[in-house]
Amino acid sequence: MAHISLPENVPGIRSLVMFRPDTGQHLYHLAQILLRGESPLTSAERELIAAYISARNACVFCSCSHAAAARFLYQEGSEVVDLALEDYRQAPISDKLKALLAIAGKVQADARTVREEDVAEARKAGADDRSIHDTVLIAATFCLFNRYVDGLATLTPPAHDAAYVQMGERMGTLGYVFPPSPSAQSRPT
Amino acid sequence: MAHISLPENVPGIRSLVMFRPDTGQHLYHLAQILLRGESPLTSAERELIAAYISARNACVFCSCSHAAAARFLYQEGSEVVDLALEDYRQAPISDKLKALLAIAGKVQADARTVREEDVAEARKAGADDRSIHDTVLIAATFCLFNRYVDGLATLTPPAHDAAYVQMGERMGTLGYVFPPSPSAQSRPT
Repeated sequence: MAHISLPENVPGIRSLVMFRPDTGQHLYHLAQILLRGESPLTSAERELIAAYISARNACVFCSCSHAAAARFLYQEGSEVVDLALEDYRQAPISDKLKALLAIAGKVQADARTVREEDVAEARKAGADDRSIHDTVLIAATFCLFNRYVDGLATLTPPAHDAAYVQMGERMGTLGYVFPPSPSAQSRPT
Repeated sequence: MAHISLPENVPGIRSLVMFRPDTGQHLYHLAQILLRGESPLTSAERELIAAYISARNACVFCSCSHAAAARFLYQEGSEVVDLALEDYRQAPISDKLKALLAIAGKVQADARTVREEDVAEARKAGADDRSIHDTVLIAATFCLFNRYVDGLATLTPPAHDAAYVQMGERMGTLGYVFPPSPSAQSRPT
């Protein structure tokens, strides 16, 4: 049960945005522009970074929903998502994305540990300033979302629930629309 | 030196918001409503929570600037800020704020560790749903800001620089105005 009175049967971040829409609107607008707006990284790559950070923070709701969104967006190549989440160094993804995931992981653990060499490695693989910036901001943003969702113990469907497939498809098609729908996919079963 | 090309002589978060204003606007709007908008917690208390989390994340820029803002807002009682940052359990602050800082610390370390008993303790001391919600969201938000600022190695004046006193006064009077001024207090000396 959640630590505060939230709308019933509404999972994760959506219940929090309904509880306090005046802060929630900025969180949704940030997610939309950061994960769907213009960027040198594809939306699929950005959702993979979001899922990777959420998995490192052991946030079931965010890791499952963003992994599902990444699978939806990678389309035929969706198997890379689970391979990358298992061990991105061995996964069939670009050297650029590997270097960016390494930076993202350091941001999650202790952002002060990102070194000039980590950034140089990413540049060597083709990352520009915006790729590096967006990676750091996505990693930092999910350190917020993960803590917000778990710190208030929001409703979280179990890890392999079909609700996440639906969420991923909606996130991949509609993006992060404010206000969030209170009804669609609100009753995970 | 910062890991990407940022405006010169502009410290911390401000340089990042100038680098990418379309994401930065949402971060500033979030900070403004969360730290200055309507809440059962005073702005001084909310800045103290922000400074506490930033200190736990060892983010010099955010901890010094938000501690300065909290000192400015506590006015004559400003000594509580440093006492609370040193050891909030022994500081002359309310039991409610102590219980909320305990929750905030858990959110920073691992949000899944916030227990029903932590929340019950806060309620016993007078915290309502909104106080608990706002505490968790402030703690989570500063886990974003701290990582964004340090993950990209932004310009950070040394810990006891007078620039922070000026920043704190501006944050305490003007709040978080977007777009941030590129000139005022932009050359910490």
